[in-house]
Amino acid sequence: MQIARPLPQYLIQRYHGWKATTHAENKAWYRRLADEGQRPRAMIISCCDSRIHVTSIFGADEGEFFIHRNIAGLVPPYAPDGDYHGTSAAVEYAVTVLKVANLVVLGHSKCGGVKGCHDMCAGNAPQLEEKTSFIGRWMDILRPSYQRQSGIADEEARLEAMEKDAVLVSLENLLSFPFVKSAIEAEELSLHGAWNDIGAGIVEYFDGETGRFVPV
Amino acid sequence: MQIARPLPQYLIQRYHGWKATTHAENKAWYRRLADEGQRPRAMIISCCDSRIHVTSIFGADEGEFFIHRNIAGLVPPYAPDGDYHGTSAAVEYAVTVLKVANLVVLGHSKCGGVKGCHDMCAGNAPQLEEKTSFIGRWMDILRPSYQRQSGIADEEARLEAMEKDAVLVSLENLLSFPFVKSAIEAEELSLHGAWNDIGAGIVEYFDGETGRFVPV
Amino acid sequence: MQIARPLPQYLIQRYHGWKATTHAENKAWYRRLADEGQRPRAMIISCCDSRIHVTSIFGADEGEFFIHRNIAGLVPPYAPDGDYHGTSAAVEYAVTVLKVANLVVLGHSKCGGVKGCHDMCAGNAPQLEEKTSFIGRWMDILRPSYQRQSGIADEEARLEAMEKDAVLVSLENLLSFPFVKSAIEAEELSLHGAWNDIGAGIVEYFDGETGRFVPV
Amino acid sequence: MQIARPLPQYLIQRYHGWKATTHAENKAWYRRLADEGQRPRAMIISCCDSRIHVTSIFGADEGEFFIHRNIAGLVPPYAPDGDYHGTSAAVEYAVTVLKVANLVVLGHSKCGGVKGCHDMCAGNAPQLEEKTSFIGRWMDILRPSYQRQSGIADEEARLEAMEKDAVLVSLENLLSFPFVKSAIEAEELSLHGAWNDIGAGIVEYFDGETGRFVPV
Repeated sequence: MQIARPLPQYLIQRYHGWKATTHAENKAWYRRLADEGQRPRAMIISCCDSRIHVTSIFGADEGEFFIHRNIAGLVPPYAPDGDYHGTSAAVEYAVTVLKVANLVVLGHSKCGGVKGCHDMCAGNAPQLEEKTSFIGRWMDILRPSYQRQSGIADEEARLEAMEKDAVLVSLENLLSFPFVKSAIEAEELSLHGAWNDIGAGIVEYFDGETGRFVPV
Repeated sequence: MQIARPLPQYLIQRYHGWKATTHAENKAWYRRLADEGQRPRAMIISCCDSRIHVTSIFGADEGEFFIHRNIAGLVPPYAPDGDYHGTSAAVEYAVTVLKVANLVVLGHSKCGGVKGCHDMCAGNAPQLEEKTSFIGRWMDILRPSYQRQSGIADEEARLEAMEKDAVLVSLENLLSFPFVKSAIEAEELSLHGAWNDIGAGIVEYFDGETGRFVPV
Repeated sequence: MQIARPLPQYLIQRYHGWKATTHAENKAWYRRLADEGQRPRAMIISCCDSRIHVTSIFGADEGEFFIHRNIAGLVPPYAPDGDYHGTSAAVEYAVTVLKVANLVVLGHSKCGGVKGCHDMCAGNAPQLEEKTSFIGRWMDILRPSYQRQSGIADEEARLEAMEKDAVLVSLENLLSFPFVKSAIEAEELSLHGAWNDIGAGIVEYFDGETGRFVPV
Repeated sequence: MQIARPLPQYLIQRYHGWKATTHAENKAWYRRLADEGQRPRAMIISCCDSRIHVTSIFGADEGEFFIHRNIAGLVPPYAPDGDYHGTSAAVEYAVTVLKVANLVVLGHSKCGGVKGCHDMCAGNAPQLEEKTSFIGRWMDILRPSYQRQSGIADEEARLEAMEKDAVLVSLENLLSFPFVKSAIEAEELSLHGAWNDIGAGIVEYFDGETGRFVPV
């Protein structure tokens, strides 16, 4: 790996800022977390998007949330085929090893992944249909949603509906994992869906009883 | 998804805290990020571990870093087989759509994923060898490292060596992606490796010239 | 302009140092900033003083802060009389074109401009009273502060009070600009005042609620 | 100034990073600079643009350069009319009080101020013609250049020519200041012009003998 370069200066200065403040203030806590291991209360699955950090929105202090971030915060269906499944591995670790009490899937507005899926299904992004497009294949998970929401005339509203569908598709796929299902049945785990409007700073959660997203 | 439950109260309280402070302070910035889109300077790949949030260590302001988190912060090799590849999709999005300038892989001490890989390879975790173990199959990516580091007598030192190997394996796998390689050749992208000691709060970066990890 | 001389050698050497390090490390980022334009999050107004560079104190990465520097970091009151107003033009560009979210006025200790104002008002610098003195006329902006702080016996303390007054006078003058006022009312902009002690390296911010400067 | 808000968190964290590194490493130097005053070798006049920090390009350590930044890095002509002239005050302070040895005017590519001047002169930005437009009135300083460069067909080339003209116009205006002229005649001061290509990272200086900009 001769090609690897030292850390950019801007990250180094940021690191020193953290070391002099957050870390200095919480030295003992970091030491304990290192010595005794983590014991997070919740797993949160959200998007890689730089505009929405659950650590900020939910004020994640160190040791509290086990966070998996991928494009659009999607969970694929259970498929124990021996291949690499990063998301499924993260869910398995959170539920069976860490035994988190809550598992939250957090979607968001203006999601580039969902937009890509929409455009691909609408026939406007043929490059995403190619076998070599990892983004396209990953967004296949959400493909059924395009058909479901195609009746919505306004594109922005249709995209938002698909963003919220993405949360529900992930929650449904989570139920296809035997260890998730049994943890829920044993009342050791609960599932939660939410969606964040980046511009307005609003969070809506999914209400299983009414089947709607509701502002908190 | 009738099974989905409202957001836990502790997350709602955190959210309102964020809304009243960070969001209130930066309303205009959030609005612009929503309207104009993200333009992150770097992608950071790190672990889901609740004890190490790059948003904290690198003071990630909204809109700055595109963050993918999975078990052990691993990148699998390039495999355009049409299946779901969440990590590869995230890398493709960051490099080809967002055109980030830096791609940082950040490993850390006391990594549960690396420990699992170690124990599995040592024959002490047979359940991770099963085809149905997503954790085991995901950690197969790091398997060659066990052999490489088996000469280290002290287990803690061996684990740390494997944690750092995980960073290098991910960087090497990144080079197997054609779009990563060509972005580097076009001087549009640089790769960086780093490792964080949770307890001590130290960050080391990988120096490609000497082939060693060096404290910043 | 035959009189213009080539760049001094010491600047050329510095430039090559930057080219070989910061620029080489961030080639792609500079290219993107050039192609896509700047989108700074904040405007910072500070002094020309060579001892206080906000780029250093706030680790200004390229593209982050729009920086105006003049003597004492002063903002004159709104005066759309058709004359040249460099500071007002900078504020107008930042607020109406770039739409920055934060506008920070940063004063500092041992400010030569403030000292000049103090001495002029005390009758000890008659040359600054002349119509041809640009420094004197510029520092007229701060003149009311001398009267206000004249009760402080210790000169050093009096000067510090005037330096902090300079920040407040600038913030007040900023409010006299209609586009600043309306951006604040639309919650698109917030004003911030701060003061840096050069020798001690301390930064204090102005707390609008208590009306005092407080160390960060 | 009840309206003033505390410093945003992202600036506070940056500050702590600086305090723990740059300041900690140079404590004694900062202390001396505070106690003994500044003694900068050069004054640099450049743009407020967030993409070009002379502190970075010329590696400005604390105490070395007296830096004035305004829109497009312009210097208006000498006009001792008793009004506020921030740029003239800065030049007067640098030349008569600090007695800098070099005065550098640094222009740059993709300059929003120059583009505004161009569009205004081309009749495409009527709002900049209004008396209340501080940007428009400030850019009046460069107005003669539009006519001069109007023969260049390619807009990008025309803008670059105007950006370089801006440097020359400023240098010429500097000569209209009696104290600048006499300092040059006494060989205590030299003037320098330069232009930075943001994307390519190239710096060109103005060669008074050939009347051309030349890469360093």
